[in-house]
Amino acid sequence: MKFLAYAQNGTEGLAIETDNGFRGLLSTDKKYPGSLLDLLKQGGTALEDAGKTLAGGQPVDEDQVTYLPPVSDPEKIVCVGLNYHDHTAESGFAEQPDYPTLFGRFNSSLIGHGAPIMRPDCSDQLDYEGELVAIIGHEARDVSEAEALEYVAGYSIFNDGSIRDYQFKAPQWTPGKNFDDTGAFGPYFIPADALPDGCLGLKLKTVLNGKVVQEAMIDQMVFSVAQIVSICSQFMTLKPGDVIVTGTPSGVGLARKPQRWMKDGDVCEVEIDQLGKLSNPIKDRVPAKTTENA
Amino acid sequence: MKFLAYAQNGTEGLAIETDNGFRGLLSTDKKYPGSLLDLLKQGGTALEDAGKTLAGGQPVDEDQVTYLPPVSDPEKIVCVGLNYHDHTAESGFAEQPDYPTLFGRFNSSLIGHGAPIMRPDCSDQLDYEGELVAIIGHEARDVSEAEALEYVAGYSIFNDGSIRDYQFKAPQWTPGKNFDDTGAFGPYFIPADALPDGCLGLKLKTVLNGKVVQEAMIDQMVFSVAQIVSICSQFMTLKPGDVIVTGTPSGVGLARKPQRWMKDGDVCEVEIDQLGKLSNPIKDRVPAKTTENA
Repeated sequence: MKFLAYAQNGTEGLAIETDNGFRGLLSTDKKYPGSLLDLLKQGGTALEDAGKTLAGGQPVDEDQVTYLPPVSDPEKIVCVGLNYHDHTAESGFAEQPDYPTLFGRFNSSLIGHGAPIMRPDCSDQLDYEGELVAIIGHEARDVSEAEALEYVAGYSIFNDGSIRDYQFKAPQWTPGKNFDDTGAFGPYFIPADALPDGCLGLKLKTVLNGKVVQEAMIDQMVFSVAQIVSICSQFMTLKPGDVIVTGTPSGVGLARKPQRWMKDGDVCEVEIDQLGKLSNPIKDRVPAKTTENA
Repeated sequence: MKFLAYAQNGTEGLAIETDNGFRGLLSTDKKYPGSLLDLLKQGGTALEDAGKTLAGGQPVDEDQVTYLPPVSDPEKIVCVGLNYHDHTAESGFAEQPDYPTLFGRFNSSLIGHGAPIMRPDCSDQLDYEGELVAIIGHEARDVSEAEALEYVAGYSIFNDGSIRDYQFKAPQWTPGKNFDDTGAFGPYFIPADALPDGCLGLKLKTVLNGKVVQEAMIDQMVFSVAQIVSICSQFMTLKPGDVIVTGTPSGVGLARKPQRWMKDGDVCEVEIDQLGKLSNPIKDRVPAKTTENA
């Protein structure tokens, strides 16, 4: 079972994969069950019920719609840094921190599958980071590692596009991780019960212009999905729809010799077994004229 | 002119200060103009118009209502670290970074004036940080320093309550800055046109149990409000209602000898000239039992 958040002629819709391809409903349709975020907030059987309703909707041609991030407006996007030993080492950190390295992304940086990752005009150091995403289904506080996965509604894929010089201009990475149109998210939302626990056993692969640049098993994460959820819940309340971006393995452009930055015309794909393939072209940003009407 | 976001018997309201005290409307009232965030998103004269409508509302007794954060649900809370030279030095940083140190807070950490700042059960290192808040009024991207203040709708006060051991467990500060109920915000929203440009010339003071522990002029900020807005707009789109927490001066408990952590029964106040006084008691958190219905 796969959910697809999309837009058609500017109207949002939600679709589900059926034996006859994707079927969905637009938000203008009376039967539209709500966005994935709405459904996760409703809880209970809202998601399953929506799946049944959507299966009776219109055929959705994946080539004819605009993909949206599965969740566009979460309360939180929590990203985990340095969560694969070999990436920690290639990033120049002498030691693997014994607590997760967490930073925030703002919703303004999100784009969907197929949309261009924008290379800014102020830097040429645009790097890829293929990552697994866990999406929270139930409010979680003080949750143990053993029960943590019960709070995860499903999974998706992220390309945590990073502007490296801006990431390291100051002790905190926020600017380099929050350029507009650098956080690619999708293509689908896959409910957790259709996947192995914590996505263990699945392989992640990042492919740049057809060449594999990152490849790792999810099992190699230093902190598992269950551990991240549990640890985050020790200091804050996770809410339905919250997005956890679980970190990237080695192979980033920053650590290559010579360094490999993404540029206009490149295509970057992140693929995870059973989750699909998130593909985004790279495009140079042309700065808009400063807004006039302040 | 001051706006006050509040709740009365669980219903949200918005009030404005008049010659006869605060007057306001609840969201259940037909004439309720919307929350501050709604009004900022509407733009145009929505805020001024709302002020006139609210002035004709019911008297609001500040002692009888619950204060809410002026904006409870912004898209972004951008916090600036190391933004006063003497605080950078006392925090053990040998050099002042020449680019703002930015980190994110999630909305789940916010509380209003009067609500308890919760000291977690997992740490006793709860520290205060009195700060000026700037709230964005218009979408801003690629904005110069000279025009940046035109994009600021108004100001408020923040106590950036920090759990120091969790702040420094890993290279990124996110956990220590995002404990539930540690980000105190309020009491009022003051439109920018009622204040000096960028709040220059105003004094900030943090008072713990009646003793002044931080005192600085806003002019001492390394990066001014105008500079922060301009720099943030170089990498992301600031949106109406976005909250910028501009950093704290020296005097934090972390840097004292002996270190001074806040504890149950303390009262911490942050005061800025013309912006009012944000006051919060400190209370020990009693962990709830793990949620049962995952």
